[in-house]
Amino acid sequence: MSKPTIGFVGLGAMGFGMAANLVREGYPVVGFDVFPASVQRFQSQGGIPASSLRESAEGKDFYICMVASAPQVQSVLFGEDGVVQYLPKNATLLLCSTVPASYAQSVAAELQSRGRADIRFIDCPVSGGAKRAADGTLSIMAGASEEALNSGLEILQVMSDSNKLYLVPGGVGAGSNMKMVHQVLAGIHILGASEAMGFAAQLGLDAKTTAEKIIGSEAWTWMHENRLQRMVEEDWNPGASALTIILKDVGIITTSARQHHFPTPLCSTAEQVYLSALLQGYGPKDDSAMVRQYYPKPLADMACTAEDPSAALQLVLDLMLGVNLVAAAEAIAFARYLNVDLAMFHRLVSDAAGASKVFIHKGLEMIEGRIGDKAPKGTQTLDEAVAQMEKVVQKARDLHCPLHLGNAALEKLLTARRHGLGREASTSVIKMFGQ
Amino acid sequence: MSKPTIGFVGLGAMGFGMAANLVREGYPVVGFDVFPASVQRFQSQGGIPASSLRESAEGKDFYICMVASAPQVQSVLFGEDGVVQYLPKNATLLLCSTVPASYAQSVAAELQSRGRADIRFIDCPVSGGAKRAADGTLSIMAGASEEALNSGLEILQVMSDSNKLYLVPGGVGAGSNMKMVHQVLAGIHILGASEAMGFAAQLGLDAKTTAEKIIGSEAWTWMHENRLQRMVEEDWNPGASALTIILKDVGIITTSARQHHFPTPLCSTAEQVYLSALLQGYGPKDDSAMVRQYYPKPLADMACTAEDPSAALQLVLDLMLGVNLVAAAEAIAFARYLNVDLAMFHRLVSDAAGASKVFIHKGLEMIEGRIGDKAPKGTQTLDEAVAQMEKVVQKARDLHCPLHLGNAALEKLLTARRHGLGREASTSVIKMFGQ
Repeated sequence: MSKPTIGFVGLGAMGFGMAANLVREGYPVVGFDVFPASVQRFQSQGGIPASSLRESAEGKDFYICMVASAPQVQSVLFGEDGVVQYLPKNATLLLCSTVPASYAQSVAAELQSRGRADIRFIDCPVSGGAKRAADGTLSIMAGASEEALNSGLEILQVMSDSNKLYLVPGGVGAGSNMKMVHQVLAGIHILGASEAMGFAAQLGLDAKTTAEKIIGSEAWTWMHENRLQRMVEEDWNPGASALTIILKDVGIITTSARQHHFPTPLCSTAEQVYLSALLQGYGPKDDSAMVRQYYPKPLADMACTAEDPSAALQLVLDLMLGVNLVAAAEAIAFARYLNVDLAMFHRLVSDAAGASKVFIHKGLEMIEGRIGDKAPKGTQTLDEAVAQMEKVVQKARDLHCPLHLGNAALEKLLTARRHGLGREASTSVIKMFGQ
Repeated sequence: MSKPTIGFVGLGAMGFGMAANLVREGYPVVGFDVFPASVQRFQSQGGIPASSLRESAEGKDFYICMVASAPQVQSVLFGEDGVVQYLPKNATLLLCSTVPASYAQSVAAELQSRGRADIRFIDCPVSGGAKRAADGTLSIMAGASEEALNSGLEILQVMSDSNKLYLVPGGVGAGSNMKMVHQVLAGIHILGASEAMGFAAQLGLDAKTTAEKIIGSEAWTWMHENRLQRMVEEDWNPGASALTIILKDVGIITTSARQHHFPTPLCSTAEQVYLSALLQGYGPKDDSAMVRQYYPKPLADMACTAEDPSAALQLVLDLMLGVNLVAAAEAIAFARYLNVDLAMFHRLVSDAAGASKVFIHKGLEMIEGRIGDKAPKGTQTLDEAVAQMEKVVQKARDLHCPLHLGNAALEKLLTARRHGLGREASTSVIKMFGQ
């Protein structure tokens, strides 16, 4: 059976890889982008160029939208030359852009109100970066009606890793919510990587050894490992992952959280530091340049000058353990509030860019509510977590090193302690987010 | 009766004014400073120069220490050439430096252990700035034994405004604690002034009109009114009140808070922004230069470009109302935890640099626990405060304007709401700090 022709809009870093992968997999793909150069480049990879949205959509039973933001999606789908008017009856529309769940739901409503309820609409944001897009090994979080999911399944499978296609229960919006709660962790850990490495430099630790120790420890985060090389080599211009991109995702989180009156303290703290850097002109640079908010010189120039390197390293690890713990609580609490399937969420995060060892282990304790006798033997108490983080924050203060996430995390731990929310650190701090 | 000779160390901006005022009031004052130029300048104002700590102390029944920090105090009092060894029997020692209460208490203990329990030691930090120091109208918060207070009372009265000498119950340490909880508000409102004016500029409001409206409204803070001119004129080099000074005071607060395991979220947030500015080289500049963390250009150049100036102004006022409310709760909760006399605290703040209209009014509601029927008619509910601040924070996000305090304040309000801590905003948010 010959493969269906796919319409595609949005040939940016991610979209280009996704479209080119579909071509390699034997699909005729008709691609459009507002930048003609991107369309030409796509043509050189075997894609079929479209000179208008209309051309990309007419007669296409499958259509993929991978533009950058909700306003762009709105224009592409429903604008004057919007594709919805050109799509054939019963076409399948895959919205892969990262958008608020409420926006994805508004697309479904607008299709209905415009008399295009026949269109099989899938809310399916992706994650994993440009390389995995090109390899067809993305993580995809898809929410839709069963009919729509069945129709789009083959294409979703071609774009994603076999273990990383999540068919999220809950229909349209559920995919975007799943991506959003994942990004809570990504948004915090990106800054966390810079905060830890900047603090390490202020402590007089050399970057390479510190990073190796972090990566080999319980303080590991996917983001730390991923951003490290670019951070040390200052490979920032242009950014492989620009500050503006994570800032957009974080904005979706904090805006949605406000709509739900739900607190996201670490993510909001990270957002403020990102906005400060934006004001300083860091927008187009790689997000690993956030290290400059903590340390003014290149990390690569740091030789180890700490008097007691192992004690200093322990402070860096403790910082990350504390931040990652509160980050896990924040993400899980928000996911639970949004009725996200927590078992799927844990599985997804554990194998994606938001992963941390702390999330994998302590996050599970939070999800399973393991308190008292049910808590793992020797589990960290809230008092211990507070004491550990107080030492870290005091040391940073003595060094005049900003520690935005560390301070915000300590504040949550201290407040949980003031309110007597429990004995174990993991299950106590999540209670700060309310039930 | 002739006036006693006073020894004095620390002829910086504040100390010089205090010492010169004592000279004008007819006291022989023997002054020392590590900078010979300061001693010479003091001599030109009628002071008696001392060429060593020893010379400033020998035979002086009254001695005033106004150096900048606890480590300096330690060196001045107990170092190799420290004054304690030279002070005569039953001398009165006034420590006017801002230090942690625990440090003031350690001075009393060290006097005892060195066999100088005869020295009448007064813990009496001051507040009010260089001008009021020179006028002898400072606020002074004095804690000591009754004997020591009686002995030092005349000098304390000469240095302070008649309404602003607070004899704080609780002995040594109580004066420093009173100053510290006052500085919680000062530390937050200094950044708050910059945050409000930077946000106003991002909203397209002109600085002068906005400031007038703020100053004439319930959003008024003493700091806003005081810092405004320097902020607009960029009169920063050198700073009338350097960033490093408020950073030192805030460091005392957050360090003490950690020792008590007490959360100070807004003050800690402000500290992080101050540390970020320090890293950018703002240390010696006036703290009103913090506006640069929110808006990149001179405020003076802003003409009003807002489409709806009155709606935009309301957002600025709402920002300050929300921040000032949480700041009041934070300061009062910490004061209560430290067993500070809350009635005196309220009286002191209301007439000092930490004052805000919100503290004066809503702070009193918090102190008196006015909930339910006892709350003033039409008092703002927690839901209203949350809704108001959500609108502010969302608008700042849309403008890509950092809003560090606004975000942190909203987080406290949201968490109080999640935990169902009450109906009225003022009395609910203070419950977030625990009982």
